[in-house]
Amino acid sequence: MKAAYYEGNKTFSVGESQPKAPGPGEVKLKVAYAGICGTDNHIYLGHMDKRLKLPQVIGHEMSGEIVELGEGVEGFGVGDKVVVRPLDPCRNCPACELGHYNICPHINFIGIDSPGAFQGWWTIPAHTLHHLPETVDMRHAAMIEPIAVACHDVRYGEVTDKDYVVVQGAGPIGILNALVARARGARVLVLEINRFRIELARELGFEAMNPLEANVPGYVEEQTRTAGADVVFEVTGSAAGAELMSQLVRTQGRIVVVAIFADPVAVNLRQILWREMRVRGARNYASEDFETATQMVASKALPLDRLISDVRTLDRTQGAFEEIERGANFMKVLLKCSD
Amino acid sequence: MKAAYYEGNKTFSVGESQPKAPGPGEVKLKVAYAGICGTDNHIYLGHMDKRLKLPQVIGHEMSGEIVELGEGVEGFGVGDKVVVRPLDPCRNCPACELGHYNICPHINFIGIDSPGAFQGWWTIPAHTLHHLPETVDMRHAAMIEPIAVACHDVRYGEVTDKDYVVVQGAGPIGILNALVARARGARVLVLEINRFRIELARELGFEAMNPLEANVPGYVEEQTRTAGADVVFEVTGSAAGAELMSQLVRTQGRIVVVAIFADPVAVNLRQILWREMRVRGARNYASEDFETATQMVASKALPLDRLISDVRTLDRTQGAFEEIERGANFMKVLLKCSD
Repeated sequence: MKAAYYEGNKTFSVGESQPKAPGPGEVKLKVAYAGICGTDNHIYLGHMDKRLKLPQVIGHEMSGEIVELGEGVEGFGVGDKVVVRPLDPCRNCPACELGHYNICPHINFIGIDSPGAFQGWWTIPAHTLHHLPETVDMRHAAMIEPIAVACHDVRYGEVTDKDYVVVQGAGPIGILNALVARARGARVLVLEINRFRIELARELGFEAMNPLEANVPGYVEEQTRTAGADVVFEVTGSAAGAELMSQLVRTQGRIVVVAIFADPVAVNLRQILWREMRVRGARNYASEDFETATQMVASKALPLDRLISDVRTLDRTQGAFEEIERGANFMKVLLKCSD
Repeated sequence: MKAAYYEGNKTFSVGESQPKAPGPGEVKLKVAYAGICGTDNHIYLGHMDKRLKLPQVIGHEMSGEIVELGEGVEGFGVGDKVVVRPLDPCRNCPACELGHYNICPHINFIGIDSPGAFQGWWTIPAHTLHHLPETVDMRHAAMIEPIAVACHDVRYGEVTDKDYVVVQGAGPIGILNALVARARGARVLVLEINRFRIELARELGFEAMNPLEANVPGYVEEQTRTAGADVVFEVTGSAAGAELMSQLVRTQGRIVVVAIFADPVAVNLRQILWREMRVRGARNYASEDFETATQMVASKALPLDRLISDVRTLDRTQGAFEEIERGANFMKVLLKCSD
């Protein structure tokens, strides 16, 4: 079995996956597929070296099968198909005491703070597992983690079938936000500046606009009888996105901040006050979001084949990251981690 | 009966109050006391001339007594003591259809967009009235309007008796936020840079700090076993306040934006996302907030005599605004509007 090791300096090497016998409460998995996340790309670009122990296997979006159980693991058996919710919170801080495990400040995000899924064998704590139905497509299942992000965002946005929703930014998380919001019955407008992503959003049946080429506030006002959007998901992480978001939302409407902003940005707090908007940060996911995402994948509620741009073997990891860096027309690239 | 007319250019003239017979659905009041609000000060400074018809009587924090009823007014009688909730929404826009009357974009804010309370006789729509108990101190009742603002803010902040609350800015609205939050059982830290206001907050029994002289994030962390504050009320409208607010709040804590920011300011959306904070704008008040405020005043739950810095007759209006502009040590100044 192979493994892709991030070596630092924009370099992956391919070596052997080191099988590790599962300790108490752990399981050993055979990884089927693992997706390349925007966070993995940040790691490749060297932004997160401080959190890693190089060389390190990274990756946290995956599907796989249990091959060995450690002592005391209950509710799972060898041969079970599973996905991993890659969060290992400290369970001993004020945030964890309040049950906010997804945002524990001392969290071990598995695949960043500890070894990840870009390998054939992967040993992880059993409390991170979610069952998959036997019939699931394991390529689709590798997208449950980012779908769970979108389920978390949409849950925080309190999206209903009455809502007019705007998604700012149509990368993988943005487009999944749009899909999950639409699955809840909302009408969704997608904003994006990248032509490939605009076209893909349209192919998926969304109304999609380039905010550099259109008067988006005017359009949203027109579409909502001057009310404004019920919910805006900000997934660009840009100053332009932060400026636009408060222009689009109705009185007492919701803004969900999904993107990770590198620096503080100008926000129109006067507008937020004037219309009594609610702004909420959404990060990672709770167990219930993983369950919702698993059900959506199992029921084939989402057009995932259209989002999977390519599937590659682990020995092509380096090239995949280089192509992403060059701006290739990818939505999601999966790595095939075992035979 | 006298009236104070704002003439523009930082000038009030004192003339006669023009009694106006109440039309259908209106009442004529004899105004007892009227408070000078921060908004009135903005008017005096010329910031809001576009919304006024000069010369105009302004003022919207008041107490009074009904002296005449227009046709069709029910539930009120001559001699009733009342306060006015000075909001006259259009009732015909998407915001009003959702019941968000306090933030109707076409709202007539009585005392700004139409004549106000700095006069002896005042004729206004009866739907704006709230009953006062017979025994209430009419000077205290003139503070019900700003107390209703604080009740609205604290309601939006979902403050409970388990909460650690930080109020940024201890002007009249900030200090009332602190008092109402404390009345709900919360522990409250007040932040302020003005020495007079710090001292007054301390006299009222609050812990009060100058954020320019203390490490506030470190102190809040220490006081909350590293968790952070449950709720922050931002009442400064300053860039420093916007920068500080997200540093003080716990995971999934709340920030209520109360101040009106003149311009967009830098906000750390990364921190808001990282701890999944909730930010909410709070403006004006609903009917229920006025009822809560009336009950608090009637039950003498708040030390209002300590907040009323002076009571003056209407012919001293000009001087009061000049003193406020010069930075006098005032919390709330009331105008006595009738004998």
